[in-house]
Amino acid sequence: MANNKNYHVAIVGVTGAVGQKMLKMLEEIDFPVEKLYPLASKRSAGKTITFKGEEIKIIEATPDAFEGVEIALFSAGGSISKELAPEAVKRGAVVIDNTSAFRMDEEVPLVVPEVNKEDIKTHKGIIANPNCSTIQMVVALDPIRKKYGLNRVIVSTYQSVSGSGNDAVEELKGQSRAMLDGEKAEANILPVKSEPNHYPIAFNALPQIDVFEDNHYTFEEMKMINETKKIMHDSTIKVAATCVRLPFFYSHAESVYIELDRDDISIEDLQNALRNHPGLVLEDDISNQIYPTPLSAEGKTDVFVGRVRKDLDVPNGFHFWVVSDNLLKGAAWNSVQIAQALIQQD
Amino acid sequence: MANNKNYHVAIVGVTGAVGQKMLKMLEEIDFPVEKLYPLASKRSAGKTITFKGEEIKIIEATPDAFEGVEIALFSAGGSISKELAPEAVKRGAVVIDNTSAFRMDEEVPLVVPEVNKEDIKTHKGIIANPNCSTIQMVVALDPIRKKYGLNRVIVSTYQSVSGSGNDAVEELKGQSRAMLDGEKAEANILPVKSEPNHYPIAFNALPQIDVFEDNHYTFEEMKMINETKKIMHDSTIKVAATCVRLPFFYSHAESVYIELDRDDISIEDLQNALRNHPGLVLEDDISNQIYPTPLSAEGKTDVFVGRVRKDLDVPNGFHFWVVSDNLLKGAAWNSVQIAQALIQQD
Repeated sequence: MANNKNYHVAIVGVTGAVGQKMLKMLEEIDFPVEKLYPLASKRSAGKTITFKGEEIKIIEATPDAFEGVEIALFSAGGSISKELAPEAVKRGAVVIDNTSAFRMDEEVPLVVPEVNKEDIKTHKGIIANPNCSTIQMVVALDPIRKKYGLNRVIVSTYQSVSGSGNDAVEELKGQSRAMLDGEKAEANILPVKSEPNHYPIAFNALPQIDVFEDNHYTFEEMKMINETKKIMHDSTIKVAATCVRLPFFYSHAESVYIELDRDDISIEDLQNALRNHPGLVLEDDISNQIYPTPLSAEGKTDVFVGRVRKDLDVPNGFHFWVVSDNLLKGAAWNSVQIAQALIQQD
Repeated sequence: MANNKNYHVAIVGVTGAVGQKMLKMLEEIDFPVEKLYPLASKRSAGKTITFKGEEIKIIEATPDAFEGVEIALFSAGGSISKELAPEAVKRGAVVIDNTSAFRMDEEVPLVVPEVNKEDIKTHKGIIANPNCSTIQMVVALDPIRKKYGLNRVIVSTYQSVSGSGNDAVEELKGQSRAMLDGEKAEANILPVKSEPNHYPIAFNALPQIDVFEDNHYTFEEMKMINETKKIMHDSTIKVAATCVRLPFFYSHAESVYIELDRDDISIEDLQNALRNHPGLVLEDDISNQIYPTPLSAEGKTDVFVGRVRKDLDVPNGFHFWVVSDNLLKGAAWNSVQIAQALIQQD
């Protein structure tokens, strides 16, 4: 691919929560699109989407649909990626995959452009976009790690329902209305659609995101643990995660505890390390009650950090609070950033 | 006070979220009440409450209102406790105070009956009820500490709005309805009524509970840190807390990380340590998606623990999830339990 060139770009899962945001991000940064291929399931084929004012028909995502595609952004679930990403690559496309299908594949770079943009160069057709909760955390951790060394992370998440897709957004709306009217909340989607039990998310908190693994962690928690180490190219960093689904629509928040390699760092030092990085905004002014929240971060592409504190017992320990829009930096925006970096490197 | 005797019991703040639950708890366990004194602000005086089927007039909480009172349950805010608890004691009452007014006073025992019931004996008129988020955590920590030793706790909380009183419950309802109807959410109460800025809690998360201290922690976070050490009589335990207000009505949840004195403990060992304790219920069966949630704990007096996991890097590290009804075990029920223990010890 060469510069000043326009590209044939496919979005797989274009009707989904993330697919819709991918469209919007491509529009907003005026990505050089020669032709857009909106792909989705058979059910959505024939409907239309609007891109840069133009109505385009949705095509069923089949192997042949990738003929001519140069960049394919996938966000239609892991099984679709496993089936169709190799078909897209076979036809000459570079795949940027927002599912967990290839993230831990040693041949596949796992990229957050602010952290490890250079890994894009090693791709063999597929570049993986990390899990939403991982992305926002590593954007905050990276400048700290580079400046002061990082040997430990313990995170508890506060994740919005949109991470489970549009169905979960509708479920939260419906359950909220029902409960406010004194009616029973019907649960069919959360915590995990494919699991036997469903619990109300409205006015509740569910300590399960994705299925359980044998070690009693959920797959979401293991994603945060494994992906953080892979993105940072450091398997020695200790990472632990507890992931919790909460009744808000957009943005994930995270309560993060870290231990640095140095024990002579002040709150101000850490705040300074978090300032003036692309994609990262320090919102930490407690005297004016300034800190990020899911609602304040909604619709923005940056990662926001606040509530920076020094641990009171452990001299190299710090606590902070990270918030970002899970559909944007956590998914669509990060994928589009990878696409940008890809065509710039070329 | 002697056994088989009935008592003159005052509830100060009887119209509040906790006061109402204190009434209910006294009724439910058939506490030996000879006469009930429902006390509240001038504004509520003259209204009535119902206790054991009887309508009783609310009296304004003044020093003289405590004449004849033997046990006074306070839950009307710290400044009321500071003013009136000494007046109640002067008139012969034992005060059980659910505010932060006396908790860190060296002369005042801070009691969670399952953990340090024997401290009640040292009282000099006032016994303090710990902060809601502290109580449920120490009930879970205590059996672990006794069996395996405990040297570190890092907690991130998921706290319901009822911890800020009935006004906050109504605010969450109103904002939720408004936002579901596409209207703007008006914020007047949370995160802290007396602070200049108010943010919507509906479909949001606020990383501020109570005011900020000079060390950048909130007062709520410092309560968890200091009270845990005091209740456990161990100032060497490292405790760190991040406290977050969330859009649910009742129960607090907590993501807790601990380090034991021993590094040869299995998940099963820890689960067993948490079983068969009064007031503590292990709900941890991930193969059937069994774990506690705010909605499942609502209205119950127990503390529920689930999601027990061993840290993957640190051999003496464990993670778990604790949920309890903040108005019951976190406030009213713990106060009534203290009253029960008090008359039994006598």
